[in-house]
Amino acid sequence: MDKFMRAAIDEAIKGKEEGGIPIGSVIVYQNEIIGRGHNRRVQSGSPILHGEMDAFENAGRRSASVYRQCTLYTTLSPCSMCSGAILLYEIPKIIIGENQTFIGEEQLLKRRGVELEVLQDPECIQLMQDFIIESPELWNEDIGTE
Amino acid sequence: MDKFMRAAIDEAIKGKEEGGIPIGSVIVYQNEIIGRGHNRRVQSGSPILHGEMDAFENAGRRSASVYRQCTLYTTLSPCSMCSGAILLYEIPKIIIGENQTFIGEEQLLKRRGVELEVLQDPECIQLMQDFIIESPELWNEDIGTE
Repeated sequence: MDKFMRAAIDEAIKGKEEGGIPIGSVIVYQNEIIGRGHNRRVQSGSPILHGEMDAFENAGRRSASVYRQCTLYTTLSPCSMCSGAILLYEIPKIIIGENQTFIGEEQLLKRRGVELEVLQDPECIQLMQDFIIESPELWNEDIGTE
Repeated sequence: MDKFMRAAIDEAIKGKEEGGIPIGSVIVYQNEIIGRGHNRRVQSGSPILHGEMDAFENAGRRSASVYRQCTLYTTLSPCSMCSGAILLYEIPKIIIGENQTFIGEEQLLKRRGVELEVLQDPECIQLMQDFIIESPELWNEDIGTE
């Protein structure tokens, strides 16, 4: 497996081990990870720290010229908020672990010229399937549904 | 002036006084502010804590049924990221201080059924005009442009 998707999955597993939602993300610039993160709704009581947002936060302040050469890896199809951050910073390429358990704003991203690749990775799918069965209320809270 | 837009402007002024970007926001539920915030790019070195995002963060974890009855007040037209958070949590109504110095994802929000009201408030416009003249590089960083 691509080492960067492996790193994103490792972040998701770290989140799970902390009792959180198992979604992870890394941001890669010039073949190096500049930001990594995982969903922190449970751990930090945060409604905004999805995996992708946590990776952006941990990458810190970067110039537009850096963001425009980055690839973002995420274990799950990015929701509206995370897709909005991707559009704000004009990240050109997103590698998505899977979109079978949840599909975010992929059509919007594509229309705006973002390149998407969906791996349908069995480990990513299993992590989310197990989590949704175990904690449906927490999952619904995270995606803003009842 | 509406007391909630006044509170959002007060947040923007607080941000300015801290040496930050003067954009503020409050989230109102049943006629009470449940979250308030301002842009913290400078103060926290954060690329994700725009005014609206900081207000979401400070509102903490809320159920979908609460978000769907909220109004978000923001001193400036919301960017892609903040608009994405608004869509994720299905905030039905946004009151915008001004969209003369920057226009965000208003068309997308409208297409998705969000009600928008733009006040073109002179104080909001002045805050941003002064800031953009004083700190153009910081402003460009915040909106992901060169």
